[in-house]
Amino acid sequence: MQPIRTVDWAPDGAAVRIIDQRHLPGSFVERDLRALDEVCDAIRSLAVRGAPAIGVAGAMGLVVALLPHTAEAHQPFIERLRRVAAAIRATRPTAVNLPWAIDRMVRTAVAVSGPPTDVLAALRLEATAIRDEDRAMCERIGEHGLALIPDGARVLTHCNAGALATAGIGTALAPIYLAAARGHDVEVFVDETRPLLQGSRLTSWELSRAGIRVTVIADNMAASLMRARRIDLCIVGADRIARNGDVANKVGTYGVAVSARHHGIPFYVAAPASTFDPVTPNGDAIEIEQRHGDEVRRGFGTLTAAEQAAVYNPAFDVTPAELVTAIVSDRGVHRPPYDFSVDHHAALHWGQTPLKTALGSDPIENRNGV
Amino acid sequence: MQPIRTVDWAPDGAAVRIIDQRHLPGSFVERDLRALDEVCDAIRSLAVRGAPAIGVAGAMGLVVALLPHTAEAHQPFIERLRRVAAAIRATRPTAVNLPWAIDRMVRTAVAVSGPPTDVLAALRLEATAIRDEDRAMCERIGEHGLALIPDGARVLTHCNAGALATAGIGTALAPIYLAAARGHDVEVFVDETRPLLQGSRLTSWELSRAGIRVTVIADNMAASLMRARRIDLCIVGADRIARNGDVANKVGTYGVAVSARHHGIPFYVAAPASTFDPVTPNGDAIEIEQRHGDEVRRGFGTLTAAEQAAVYNPAFDVTPAELVTAIVSDRGVHRPPYDFSVDHHAALHWGQTPLKTALGSDPIENRNGV
Repeated sequence: MQPIRTVDWAPDGAAVRIIDQRHLPGSFVERDLRALDEVCDAIRSLAVRGAPAIGVAGAMGLVVALLPHTAEAHQPFIERLRRVAAAIRATRPTAVNLPWAIDRMVRTAVAVSGPPTDVLAALRLEATAIRDEDRAMCERIGEHGLALIPDGARVLTHCNAGALATAGIGTALAPIYLAAARGHDVEVFVDETRPLLQGSRLTSWELSRAGIRVTVIADNMAASLMRARRIDLCIVGADRIARNGDVANKVGTYGVAVSARHHGIPFYVAAPASTFDPVTPNGDAIEIEQRHGDEVRRGFGTLTAAEQAAVYNPAFDVTPAELVTAIVSDRGVHRPPYDFSVDHHAALHWGQTPLKTALGSDPIENRNGV
Repeated sequence: MQPIRTVDWAPDGAAVRIIDQRHLPGSFVERDLRALDEVCDAIRSLAVRGAPAIGVAGAMGLVVALLPHTAEAHQPFIERLRRVAAAIRATRPTAVNLPWAIDRMVRTAVAVSGPPTDVLAALRLEATAIRDEDRAMCERIGEHGLALIPDGARVLTHCNAGALATAGIGTALAPIYLAAARGHDVEVFVDETRPLLQGSRLTSWELSRAGIRVTVIADNMAASLMRARRIDLCIVGADRIARNGDVANKVGTYGVAVSARHHGIPFYVAAPASTFDPVTPNGDAIEIEQRHGDEVRRGFGTLTAAEQAAVYNPAFDVTPAELVTAIVSDRGVHRPPYDFSVDHHAALHWGQTPLKTALGSDPIENRNGV
């Protein structure tokens, strides 16, 4: 089966081709984003979503948005680049990958002294590198995480941290894909993940497409499955991980972690090292995006709550580090006490930064060669 | 404002008039149930739902279903009554109120030696008594529970255990209605309660109709609200309470209880004494109704999970007694260790059974006159 191409260049190189995830699982629709407003709209409306994927989409989107403007002089072009970068960066506030990717693109651009066509060529290479690193990152998370998935494991996940959230095989789902590929028996339970149902719409789609046994549950059913000893471990993604290991992820993650702790079930987070945010001391300092109440109130066309009632609709929540059994990154398996004080973002250029320095005092298992 | 009449006689006495809750909150539709299949279908399809309300609807439905058959001889009429009773009793398996109400109706019928018209008259009186007792029961739960709701309380509830679940002002919501009626400041957060959204569709509707401040959240947001110290207490209903105090209630209740314990927040259950089931030793012995996966998969009209994915859709879960801070019934506030070994159902005829005997060894507060 063809791997899923969640975000990639369109064949002509003049657009970002995404799978429009708002149509899944009912229909498979690819869309080409050819202008800045299309890129921003696709990220904001969650047509493309998942922290790593929006980093890649943002970087590629920057290239596409600048493509018609290479006839400008160097300085106006760089000024335009900064405006475009700011616009893409502002589409979603919580995930760290988007600003990280955009800032990396801006650094790349300003390092080129040649004409705009040279700048654009460097940017295209850099966006392609971000995509390829993302794919490699997924594979590495899968390899590190594999040891955490025993044969026969029944795994609970929340939201979608799979192929549809990255340019590769996902983060939380990467160890599951690798386990299945090696012939291990693995079964997944996925929370539907209200209000936007990324778990039921996306995770169930990509796992069943890959032939992996998957059962959808409403978010509120996870605790009783744990009590019935039908879940062996939980693994979820992350949008931002604070220096102390507090994890911001899709709303509902925290409740899963609380339940897992209550039942003595391991709770793992899988995310690229680019998700570690050394600047943010703990979860309280993470800005949580608040989304429109109508996502809850009339998410599917019909009114499902009284018009007069208020709605509280945060997109994310914070799981404190003490509930996280381990964090799996492309660097290995990190165990508490967590300390992500070294800037892993800057260190993401594997060839340039020795892994040892990048790791700092972070306790780590399965460290493998880079 | 007119009180909500969730289930009552139609004006001509030949039908059960219900609010068809499948249409809320979008439109307010009343339906008259005039035949056995209409009664069974209304209960099965959750047009009328909530353990106390389906007890009342079942009892009234029995009368309506027998109405065309009073010309039969006594024995065939009683045989028909048993068949009709069995059919209504079988519509939903988990709540104890329905079999309790139906069995009470059958006992009433067989105690009448006169012609079917006499039996039917006795049944009509009995069904009316069940309705009136239900209303009185709600008021009493409200009075007992009032002491648990401090002024300014921010209360989390799950599903709908309100006026729409009873013939009166509800069970879990009764103390809230009384607190508001006495001018106390009270704010409610309600889980939307997937898959059928009774919390967002029904609880938000009836509370905002009554002018009580209510905020709808997705089920998976409750834990993070608790962590943010925005919930002071939880109060939910119950469909069946085992002898040891284990509580079967709408799926998701258990997760709320686990989160409440983790955050040190009181978790209360409010239910009529008719919900106590002395025959069932603990929650493991309670049959949990499994409903069709399409309630999760295409509950909003569109496909929201991959066709190939399995769905797990239990209607209820069990919260073990050790997570329940107190149980509020029409008898008072029960505290652990719970012991509901005395048959409160039989004792529900207040005039006949001394309260003291009925209470057994059950630790109880606020015991008030009967």
